[in-house]
Amino acid sequence: MKFCSQCGEPVISKVPDDDNRPRFVCESCHTIHYENPKIVAGCIPAWEDKVLLCRRAIEPRRGLWTLPAGFMENDETVQEAALRETQEEANAHVQLLELYTLLNLPHVSQVYMMFRSQLKDLDFSPGNESLETRLFSREEIPWNEIAFKTIEQTLTFYFDDLEKGHFRFHLGDIIRNSEATFFIRHSPQTGENE
Amino acid sequence: MKFCSQCGEPVISKVPDDDNRPRFVCESCHTIHYENPKIVAGCIPAWEDKVLLCRRAIEPRRGLWTLPAGFMENDETVQEAALRETQEEANAHVQLLELYTLLNLPHVSQVYMMFRSQLKDLDFSPGNESLETRLFSREEIPWNEIAFKTIEQTLTFYFDDLEKGHFRFHLGDIIRNSEATFFIRHSPQTGENE
Repeated sequence: MKFCSQCGEPVISKVPDDDNRPRFVCESCHTIHYENPKIVAGCIPAWEDKVLLCRRAIEPRRGLWTLPAGFMENDETVQEAALRETQEEANAHVQLLELYTLLNLPHVSQVYMMFRSQLKDLDFSPGNESLETRLFSREEIPWNEIAFKTIEQTLTFYFDDLEKGHFRFHLGDIIRNSEATFFIRHSPQTGENE
Repeated sequence: MKFCSQCGEPVISKVPDDDNRPRFVCESCHTIHYENPKIVAGCIPAWEDKVLLCRRAIEPRRGLWTLPAGFMENDETVQEAALRETQEEANAHVQLLELYTLLNLPHVSQVYMMFRSQLKDLDFSPGNESLETRLFSREEIPWNEIAFKTIEQTLTFYFDDLEKGHFRFHLGDIIRNSEATFFIRHSPQTGENE
């Protein structure tokens, strides 16, 4: 951010009075510009022992596979966002079952929320942002061609729970360390929520 | 938004190519400015059959009671945000137990996430944004002086579950209708997540 979106004058970065972290502040009209994390909402569309994945037609990670998911928009609910993304990316019709994973990505200020869901029919096809849509069992999933760590982790939780015959909510953090590798930090309360 | 935060030129509202909703767009530097919902994270700090409420020292709703909660910041997790707000508003030390409510407020583009938590001790006191901090049993709660609908609903879920002896995750929407009254829409999947 370089200019004030209210008056067009340059902003500076400083800690406002009564605050404890730097913000972009306009010294002309005194607007403080807060920046906050974004929600990515999506679905795990299930059919028997398989899930529906989309091969991305857009950057980042064009050509790799993902679950249907995307940025939540203003004026909608998390559930509506998950359904909309599933419709847009896979032309798929699902019934939402439950919130299944909440994964924090603090290094990019994102929170992923993925819903378990049931495909209503097999009438799905690639949307504008997908090259291909296909059902995969655990063994068929192209694990080395999954677009995002959050999606790989959600799929791992899902198939582990499917094999156990018991689904439960998973809360976790995906942390990038100094070597730019990632690790999963399961929150202490995970497993206490059954 | 009136001016581009990248170049300072005026923005217009239009639907960009390959998009389906209006955005603020800069026709000078071609930046598209997306706006997304904000997360409010907080705690239900419990001690025996009581919960800790804060009386607000700031607008909106100055003088009314609330659970410790506030806007999630960049670079943190939802759990860290809930703990930070509890520290800032009530100087209280809690152990997080589990994500307890997720309430959508689409009319203000906010998502509330409240965690059940256990007070570690009774060493709490009002932070800068609170006039008073106090423990309340269900009967003692000033139900007509609760600052926000989300907090009133979270407290209702909490004490109902406490009486049943079984806590479960609650997903719901708080919808404002045309008369500016509110109603709670429980999501279909609520109750299927036990």
